[in-house]
Amino acid sequence: MPRVLALETHDVRFPTSLTLACSDAMNPAPDYAAAYAVLRTDGPDELAGHGFAFTIGRFNDVQVAAIAALAPAIVGADVDELVADLGGFSRRLVGDSQLRWLGPETGIAHMAVGAIVNACWDLKARRAGLPLWRLLCDLTPAELVALVDFRYLEDAITPAEALDLLERGAEGKAARILELTAGGYPAYSTAPGWLGYTDDHLAGLLRQVIGEGFGQVKLKVGGSVQDDVRRLALAREICGPDYLIAIDANQVWGTGEAIRWIRQLAEFNPAWMEEPTFPDDILAMAQIRRAVAPVPIAAGEHVANRVVFKQLLQAGALDVMQIDATRVAGVNENVANLLLAAKAGIRVCPHAGGVGLCEAVQHLSFFDYACVSGTMDDRVIEWIDHLHEHFVSPAVVRDGRYIAPTAAGNSMEMRADSIREYSYPDGPAWAGNAVRTLGNQP
Amino acid sequence: MPRVLALETHDVRFPTSLTLACSDAMNPAPDYAAAYAVLRTDGPDELAGHGFAFTIGRFNDVQVAAIAALAPAIVGADVDELVADLGGFSRRLVGDSQLRWLGPETGIAHMAVGAIVNACWDLKARRAGLPLWRLLCDLTPAELVALVDFRYLEDAITPAEALDLLERGAEGKAARILELTAGGYPAYSTAPGWLGYTDDHLAGLLRQVIGEGFGQVKLKVGGSVQDDVRRLALAREICGPDYLIAIDANQVWGTGEAIRWIRQLAEFNPAWMEEPTFPDDILAMAQIRRAVAPVPIAAGEHVANRVVFKQLLQAGALDVMQIDATRVAGVNENVANLLLAAKAGIRVCPHAGGVGLCEAVQHLSFFDYACVSGTMDDRVIEWIDHLHEHFVSPAVVRDGRYIAPTAAGNSMEMRADSIREYSYPDGPAWAGNAVRTLGNQP
Repeated sequence: MPRVLALETHDVRFPTSLTLACSDAMNPAPDYAAAYAVLRTDGPDELAGHGFAFTIGRFNDVQVAAIAALAPAIVGADVDELVADLGGFSRRLVGDSQLRWLGPETGIAHMAVGAIVNACWDLKARRAGLPLWRLLCDLTPAELVALVDFRYLEDAITPAEALDLLERGAEGKAARILELTAGGYPAYSTAPGWLGYTDDHLAGLLRQVIGEGFGQVKLKVGGSVQDDVRRLALAREICGPDYLIAIDANQVWGTGEAIRWIRQLAEFNPAWMEEPTFPDDILAMAQIRRAVAPVPIAAGEHVANRVVFKQLLQAGALDVMQIDATRVAGVNENVANLLLAAKAGIRVCPHAGGVGLCEAVQHLSFFDYACVSGTMDDRVIEWIDHLHEHFVSPAVVRDGRYIAPTAAGNSMEMRADSIREYSYPDGPAWAGNAVRTLGNQP
Repeated sequence: MPRVLALETHDVRFPTSLTLACSDAMNPAPDYAAAYAVLRTDGPDELAGHGFAFTIGRFNDVQVAAIAALAPAIVGADVDELVADLGGFSRRLVGDSQLRWLGPETGIAHMAVGAIVNACWDLKARRAGLPLWRLLCDLTPAELVALVDFRYLEDAITPAEALDLLERGAEGKAARILELTAGGYPAYSTAPGWLGYTDDHLAGLLRQVIGEGFGQVKLKVGGSVQDDVRRLALAREICGPDYLIAIDANQVWGTGEAIRWIRQLAEFNPAWMEEPTFPDDILAMAQIRRAVAPVPIAAGEHVANRVVFKQLLQAGALDVMQIDATRVAGVNENVANLLLAAKAGIRVCPHAGGVGLCEAVQHLSFFDYACVSGTMDDRVIEWIDHLHEHFVSPAVVRDGRYIAPTAAGNSMEMRADSIREYSYPDGPAWAGNAVRTLGNQP
């Protein structure tokens, strides 16, 4: 009867702000970071569970403290009981009344719950000897429904409707699993489009990713209209008129400014317009979408919970749901998000990149195709070829497609030597670099 | 040229869960707590600034860590420069791109900014020798506009509209300040209505607060309809048909359940229905308000920022804005909230109670009457006679009205002996009590 012996945490940061990779209109100089958690058990060595919250530098230590503060909820738990009811476990954590005061269900406290819940799923998948997506595929529709917290969702989807969706989604599942295993899932590349890049660098990278087989790219916008127009014209020239080019403003605009700005970029026929404004501003997003139609609106990397996604769908504010593996309360809440999208009939194109987000979120899209939506039409997972070397089972993209993960677990395990090297502020990688504080920004 | 020498923090918790005071349908056993911050300067002794975030127990340590992590943004600052531009200072903190990732503008990170911004206002008011509300009254309309972060607000209120509102609000200001000084501001009492109280206890407390001169009380609801109906019938019998009785469900319902439940309580003519559902569910709140009209809908203690308040007003979801002194990014964001309410023509009835929330928020209502709304009609500040003895300048309510604060500062300074006594987990007050963790709840 194995037990959870310890919750180990690490503050791991990569000095990505030293280059201008990852620069956008809102985030000029992020240091990609993981508030990293390991559940140690007294089973055999491999029975550990790994999870993390992704941040962009400062306050990663606070995120780590929040994860560590959840130790009393998990240390000492009977592993068999724990993994047998991850729906109940995650509802108890999310619903803890004192913890909830710090949200509810948003920000640092909620992301801490997500890291722990994801680590539990890693543990469960390793015990089953399956990659997370295959483990999820083996659950029955009723077992999947039991994972979801329907509190505040029932005006959009009921447990009975979810069960019905999943029963229909299970038809043909075996064939789709084979198809995923053989052919993977489409990816798109954000690599060429960072705001800090010169036009020449942008052009070179665009040619490169097209050559690598990607069917879509994404460019950051929102610094200046003139720059955006010039860069998009260049991209259209290189990619051709029908190639998919999404654009992303990372929340820098107010409503009126967004509408004026997007109208000036609409001639370049964007595949979608991502994060035009504040992520919780549901009414603004809906107004922007109506005003710039038919430009599709995408958002999600900063959507804190299923209730905000629910409203974005109810308000007609969203064409593309961009789930994120570590923003919400882990796998369970993302199953809720996938069900909301399926019910509304909108596509899910996950946010990834960062540190380990490709690794983590791919499992959810593979599961979605096999068991929920049953379609890959117009669906792509974000891909940035960056920092994968720090993971034990890195995500792999070939010919513009994610290859189905096969290693047991959720792919979030970071290499022990990377954790040592990039531990903040004492790891060797930080020895030659100025420590990043609010008063000391590059 | 005084400088900020240090940011001192304390984890202060009161074992309120040992009684059933403070129990409601969502929060059965809170331990009221303050993540407390002091800005020490090298001016004379009294030149310190005090602020805190209010939490209800667990994770107060994480909230303290978040406040402490902001030290590099404030320690070393020139105090004259700092207090001369608190608008710029708060916009820089709120807008820090790496910090913003953990929100944006919500949860632990945002409340940490609020504690620091409030401490800066305390420092500024002490230097001026004025209570915070009087200091705010001395600012010109243009200076007040400069405090506000209009990002994401301009579809509801522009700087020019705010200036116009404040210029009109300033007319007759001197007379209203005299009126406040002489007669104070109306309070309402939540003391009788906690869910854990017996009917006899409820009845006794209702008679007591009516005798003390309060014109309104609030009862917690949402445990069971039968109990709510019985308690409200009892309250109506004691208070009479015209006495103001507000009710508060603390977010426990989904949309449909809220509508069904409120309709069963509507016969008791509630003064308002507070927090019927999830605080970020703007569309649900609007739907509930339409369905249960004319019952007024109130919310705000869990509204994370001005953008959510903006939407609640735009969606027609709110009759009563319940600002909270420590939920948002401090005084500056609450000035924005007061302006939004004034523009929309709805009343502001602040959330208080907790630890020191009465002390902190009273200044904002006094300022609102003097300089913004110019009215006290149907407006009341929450009052719970609890834990005030721990503050150096406690809020005072007499004959059902808050007495105008006269001590210099924002009234958030806690007594040094209280901080020592209730420091968690090592203060003497916790020596005889079980330490509260997720695994060890009373």
